[in-house]
Amino acid sequence: MSLWLQLEQAEAGESRALSEVLDAIPWNADGLIATIAQQHDSGEVLMLAWVNRTALEQTLTSGRVCYWSRSRQQLWRKGETSGNPQHLLEARLDCDGDAILFKVEQQGPACHTGRANCFYNAIRNERVCVIGAAQ
Amino acid sequence: MSLWLQLEQAEAGESRALSEVLDAIPWNADGLIATIAQQHDSGEVLMLAWVNRTALEQTLTSGRVCYWSRSRQQLWRKGETSGNPQHLLEARLDCDGDAILFKVEQQGPACHTGRANCFYNAIRNERVCVIGAAQ
Repeated sequence: MSLWLQLEQAEAGESRALSEVLDAIPWNADGLIATIAQQHDSGEVLMLAWVNRTALEQTLTSGRVCYWSRSRQQLWRKGETSGNPQHLLEARLDCDGDAILFKVEQQGPACHTGRANCFYNAIRNERVCVIGAAQ
Repeated sequence: MSLWLQLEQAEAGESRALSEVLDAIPWNADGLIATIAQQHDSGEVLMLAWVNRTALEQTLTSGRVCYWSRSRQQLWRKGETSGNPQHLLEARLDCDGDAILFKVEQQGPACHTGRANCFYNAIRNERVCVIGAAQ
């Protein structure tokens, strides 16, 4: 039985070693899984990005979120250049292990545009409306 | 200038035609973008799935969330077999158009395991701990 099926059938409170779980993650062809960053207290969804195993391990070890930049093809320690880091409160894998949710304390805006989050293009009445002002 | 850069520099309240925006989405090699479903009032992140253009258009037209199932390679009208649909309140594209946030009213549990959401594997102290009970 796959690890994910074991976890699916587990009772609340059961656990597995992290290394065993990381070995079982179905990383995609580029070695990545999708990652959601959410502000831990307000629930605001800040952004969607990607991690490889190294980025995830660095995030867990340091407590500061590190992604894999697909455009730059390198580790992206969020905030290192922007000054707007994400401090990790908790990481949670989903039921089939191909997505992860980071609950974070976002310092400053999350989006490179200066907006609080990246999801500022709202689809309304056959239009896409910008709902957050650039800074 | 790309549409995404135009939207990035737009003031709040500016808008574009939906069809123009859909044409500009950088669909991946499989014609998909990542999709986050979030309970609209509580802020709970329910799941991460994928949409192609057809699934997204069906979602917007019907008001009921439709994904693309990568495992079954077919449209996945959430709730059609499980009885736990997602009613769309608003869809929002991110800054570079390769991720979308669905704000939904989730009817019943979102996860196929019967848990309220899919993110029940919490990483804590070098362990992965199941924090939601199966039903």
